[in-house]
Amino acid sequence: MRKAAVKNAFYAQSGGVSAVINASACGVIETAQRSRQIGKVYAGRDGIVGALTEDLIDIGRESATTIRALKHTPAGAFGSARFKLKGIEQNRSEYQRLIEVFQAHDIGYFFYNGGNDSMDTALKVSQLGASLGFPITCVGVPKTVDNDLPYTDCCPGFGSVAKYVAVSTREAALDVASMARTSTRVFVFEVMGRHAGWIAAAAGLAGRSPAQAPHLILFPEVPFEQQKFLDRVRASVEDCGYCVIVVSEGAAYADGRFLADAGTRDAFGHTQLGGVGPMIANMVREAHGYKYHWAVADYLQRSARHIASRVDVEQAYAVGKAAVELAVKGVNAVMPTIVRRAHRPYRWTIGHVPLSEVANKEKKLPPEYIRADGFGITAACRRYLEPLVSGEAYPPYKNGLPDYVQIRGVSVRRKLKTEFRI
Amino acid sequence: MRKAAVKNAFYAQSGGVSAVINASACGVIETAQRSRQIGKVYAGRDGIVGALTEDLIDIGRESATTIRALKHTPAGAFGSARFKLKGIEQNRSEYQRLIEVFQAHDIGYFFYNGGNDSMDTALKVSQLGASLGFPITCVGVPKTVDNDLPYTDCCPGFGSVAKYVAVSTREAALDVASMARTSTRVFVFEVMGRHAGWIAAAAGLAGRSPAQAPHLILFPEVPFEQQKFLDRVRASVEDCGYCVIVVSEGAAYADGRFLADAGTRDAFGHTQLGGVGPMIANMVREAHGYKYHWAVADYLQRSARHIASRVDVEQAYAVGKAAVELAVKGVNAVMPTIVRRAHRPYRWTIGHVPLSEVANKEKKLPPEYIRADGFGITAACRRYLEPLVSGEAYPPYKNGLPDYVQIRGVSVRRKLKTEFRI
Repeated sequence: MRKAAVKNAFYAQSGGVSAVINASACGVIETAQRSRQIGKVYAGRDGIVGALTEDLIDIGRESATTIRALKHTPAGAFGSARFKLKGIEQNRSEYQRLIEVFQAHDIGYFFYNGGNDSMDTALKVSQLGASLGFPITCVGVPKTVDNDLPYTDCCPGFGSVAKYVAVSTREAALDVASMARTSTRVFVFEVMGRHAGWIAAAAGLAGRSPAQAPHLILFPEVPFEQQKFLDRVRASVEDCGYCVIVVSEGAAYADGRFLADAGTRDAFGHTQLGGVGPMIANMVREAHGYKYHWAVADYLQRSARHIASRVDVEQAYAVGKAAVELAVKGVNAVMPTIVRRAHRPYRWTIGHVPLSEVANKEKKLPPEYIRADGFGITAACRRYLEPLVSGEAYPPYKNGLPDYVQIRGVSVRRKLKTEFRI
Repeated sequence: MRKAAVKNAFYAQSGGVSAVINASACGVIETAQRSRQIGKVYAGRDGIVGALTEDLIDIGRESATTIRALKHTPAGAFGSARFKLKGIEQNRSEYQRLIEVFQAHDIGYFFYNGGNDSMDTALKVSQLGASLGFPITCVGVPKTVDNDLPYTDCCPGFGSVAKYVAVSTREAALDVASMARTSTRVFVFEVMGRHAGWIAAAAGLAGRSPAQAPHLILFPEVPFEQQKFLDRVRASVEDCGYCVIVVSEGAAYADGRFLADAGTRDAFGHTQLGGVGPMIANMVREAHGYKYHWAVADYLQRSARHIASRVDVEQAYAVGKAAVELAVKGVNAVMPTIVRRAHRPYRWTIGHVPLSEVANKEKKLPPEYIRADGFGITAACRRYLEPLVSGEAYPPYKNGLPDYVQIRGVSVRRKLKTEFRI
């Protein structure tokens, strides 16, 4: 048996970052550096943009300590990008450029760490590489806080945002409960998830029983009915003294319009400031006159490595490691998946799925996870979610703050004469 | 020497709650229960409202484990109240009612856990008690996330919100830095502090040097100048690729108008939705067109026990304990204070100050803590703040979430025939 030639590896981060995408990077890099089939390991500076512009980071110039510290450092240490390659028909030149750069740097392995769009890109690179006579092994590394990739039980990044949202909801609910007699009665917490309600569902873990906060969750999957909602808010305030509402940024009316795009504009015709959180809070005040507070966590929720789920960190590392192991075995155009073996005690293993299956598909919250009244989660949903937020994985602290690492980011010397403008 | 008669003690939480006000409750209760001069320990349900309505919680019916768990449980376990007693001249009946309830339940010690207003109430109760022939020992227990009480080096509650804000700023800044090349360039984070910029200042700890995020902090103490601000945002984006802005809810123009009250109203004449965070983000977009994100932490920041400062938890407990020790020694109408002995290594002790000194006064961020350009903190400010966020004090977890305690809250049997309506 002839040994495969040693090739270099390229890793890039794609799309919105998470608290654990660097843990996946750590899994890819540590595994690749131990592999005899992989020579140098490069990363794209600012994701795929770094590949197109031949702006590669030489990971060999980072210390083992730095690479290890990625496991406890949030966001994209190498830079990520919101940059979707167009279809091959529309812009073949982008794919050709990628292959050109990979060829110039003897890159035979392409690890792309992202969500649905990114899996599509990885698939196209694998196909075009072959057709241009430069076969490259492309493996996707799943990452999305939205938890909407199909075929995998969950997505690295989700467990930590879920934990952040559940913890924050439990804490803020205690605050509101303390104040409700003479002050705030309604608290609205806006969370991410434009198309799928997974993150909003995680807030449901905050209550130990349905009577506990959050009293109402507004999911993108459930069309918003204003009067029904307002009636439930009043009932909650009358029964419990207060009402905690968690709203997904993707909450929408039956006709598909986002609540946040309610058509209200300021004097200059600009779209109304603020998201769906303040909009819902105001709606409640106008109807019932209750004193309210609202919070919008935005980037705080997806970068909150300080309260990451240990299971999530372990899974993020594991999919990175598995991606390399699959690639060096010659398994091409796949994405590692998380396979659930048991709920409690929770057991999971790593599987994989062809990129062609997973690309551009979206997994929404299934109806059996949403309570019959549409405003909460079911026991089945709780059983699914609980293992994903379990365990803590605290970062080290220095002077009272998490000691996150920064890479040196030494550039690889350019080999191509041509420039590429993005 | 004749021993002082044994009297019961009353404890109440007042005003906005914090991540560590229950740690102060724990300090008061554990110390009072060990004292031979104190009989029963009662708490007001929903703060002073519970005293006025004779709705007392019998703390003797709570287990020692529950009381201990208060140390790691955020918000007001006994209920707090935004209820300021009027001046004695305007509403003598409220004070008389308090004395009546205290007399009925043989209460000789009054511990009031709150901020500036609450210290004023405690003072008045001590004065009126004496003049009505029912002397009662009144000791204030300092609490405010705003850190604006005078005479104490810092206020329990502040260290934990400071840590939350500094950690969140550091994390979100890494997120923005990852995305800036192709997506979000400006991130605005709104924090609490309506009159004093202490909380906003804490965000300054996130950067290890002035070049690091947050690039701009907007303090209530520095009048907002729009053009100067916008120029600095542009410079930051051009120099660093992105700009992280932390804005205090109390940021204001030179004439005292809050930025959040910019006069914009919707079609119905209602004040514009959203706070100063989205308002600033929109201002930047209109001027420069940068893609932005914004977050408003609201109650999340002050209830975030999961990321509490260990120093803050210890100080919160210590002031509760000291309040009881002072009271049983017969020291009346005082508030324990935190006295800083050394910056690094940080050393502190407990002192005390007369309530008459501290009542209704406000401590703002001093000019020497604000950078000359008005947009950041000085080294002196960092030296002051760093010890206050130091150390972690993680709560226990169960099923992936903090295991916060709930009191039984058994009521004390009423003794008065009269009702009191608040």
